[in-house]
Amino acid sequence: MIIEQIKENVTFDGVTSYFEHDSEVTKTTMKFSTFVPGNRTVKNAIIWLSGLTCTEDNFITKAGAQRFLKDSNTMIICPDTSPRGLDLPCEHESYDFGSGAGFYLNATAEGYKDHYKMYDYISKDIIHILKDNFGINQFSIMGHSMGGHGALVFGLREAQLFKSVSAFSPLVNPTKCPWGQKAFKGYFEDGASALGAQYDATELTMSGKIRDDLILIDQGLGDEFLDEQLLTENYVTACKKVGQKVKVNYRKGYDHSYFYISTFIEEHISFHLNALEG
Amino acid sequence: MIIEQIKENVTFDGVTSYFEHDSEVTKTTMKFSTFVPGNRTVKNAIIWLSGLTCTEDNFITKAGAQRFLKDSNTMIICPDTSPRGLDLPCEHESYDFGSGAGFYLNATAEGYKDHYKMYDYISKDIIHILKDNFGINQFSIMGHSMGGHGALVFGLREAQLFKSVSAFSPLVNPTKCPWGQKAFKGYFEDGASALGAQYDATELTMSGKIRDDLILIDQGLGDEFLDEQLLTENYVTACKKVGQKVKVNYRKGYDHSYFYISTFIEEHISFHLNALEG
Repeated sequence: MIIEQIKENVTFDGVTSYFEHDSEVTKTTMKFSTFVPGNRTVKNAIIWLSGLTCTEDNFITKAGAQRFLKDSNTMIICPDTSPRGLDLPCEHESYDFGSGAGFYLNATAEGYKDHYKMYDYISKDIIHILKDNFGINQFSIMGHSMGGHGALVFGLREAQLFKSVSAFSPLVNPTKCPWGQKAFKGYFEDGASALGAQYDATELTMSGKIRDDLILIDQGLGDEFLDEQLLTENYVTACKKVGQKVKVNYRKGYDHSYFYISTFIEEHISFHLNALEG
Repeated sequence: MIIEQIKENVTFDGVTSYFEHDSEVTKTTMKFSTFVPGNRTVKNAIIWLSGLTCTEDNFITKAGAQRFLKDSNTMIICPDTSPRGLDLPCEHESYDFGSGAGFYLNATAEGYKDHYKMYDYISKDIIHILKDNFGINQFSIMGHSMGGHGALVFGLREAQLFKSVSAFSPLVNPTKCPWGQKAFKGYFEDGASALGAQYDATELTMSGKIRDDLILIDQGLGDEFLDEQLLTENYVTACKKVGQKVKVNYRKGYDHSYFYISTFIEEHISFHLNALEG
């Protein structure tokens, strides 16, 4: 795939970069950022999926992940959270649907179905770019909030593709929370019920989609979205029922912000490096 | 002074906060951010001065400094870079003059002289706030680019007030570079010559304003502004002439960005903690 580097900054003796490329999946120009450690023998990649309103810029500038990847053979890639440059009905009217809110699914609703195919974008385009343009052959995935939902869904549905899965403040049960219900209603032609379960970590788990390895989740107890949107315990309950190993680190006082992510990013990077590099 | 906390996020077991207050110096509402380590026995503060276009938000979200202050007795405070909410002639027309470009000086030009008094704002308002509202009794200062210029100028002119001084990519000789010349011409009634020298680290040094301790400077060799605007060697030459101890860490390949700052912030925080906490 042809990707164009639009910016690069030396960081921790490696390189933080921003790219754009034409995606056949979304039929738009898509952007992503990367950090590649300086040793240039990288063979592994962590895919970071961002949350609502974010772009390719938030994580790479705010999380401080580069510090913990600099001596590894593992890069990180941070895709944008939706197609851009379109003007679909209702696309730009709210922060939790449309632009900046792709929910890592393949839409089926009129208009959206031609572009909002973020499930394929991540599992096909991004994987192809990592393989072909960066020489990567092992993948892990993580994300935050809507992106934590994405990480769990990819980790369960593409269990063989990803060596390890972690999430900060994920929406674990989107068919049961307002953000997820609104998104699924908008993106799926016939409403949420039929397709929604395929993009719901708790539903996937209950239907037997499990991983052999432990899934790591981080959740602030001061998170303003915990009780209404994130529903962490629904997933924990499902994991117990089917025997999925999961570790949830609840963090007293921490909220939903990148200040929280920056505090615990080291643990998540270590978790993935352990899976990828042993 | 009455300050209002407008946001707080638990970070590394401490608290990152945003405040605003009415300043009698600038006669505007001013904003700043802080990080206070969790032990709550802080007695020291590092003042961070940001560069052109920045606000109170850039450093505190991007530099990753909290990680290295979390176990200390030292907080950090990051003031905005200019008054806001005014509409002075030419104030919002360019990135390098007016809003976001206060240059840490007391303006004398008509209009600006009533509000753009960032020298007094930092050395009086911010110091008073740190003493009265946070219980701080020791201060260090650092900054980036225009803020690196500010840190050096405060460190030389208020040598007794600040225990240590460091700078990333500072404008060391603003009377000799386009950014400084434009700013000084705009902010000073009679042009740059008379007052400019009081806000020029190289000129101050040559006129005998020196410190007993070593000044730490960090400078990327891939910095796109090095040759035209920053003029680092002018300051090194002046320091040699008058016997000012200075250490410049030149960094091959690094540019002017916060990715660069994040890479080396640990060294600067350690430098200041050593001076403040011994």
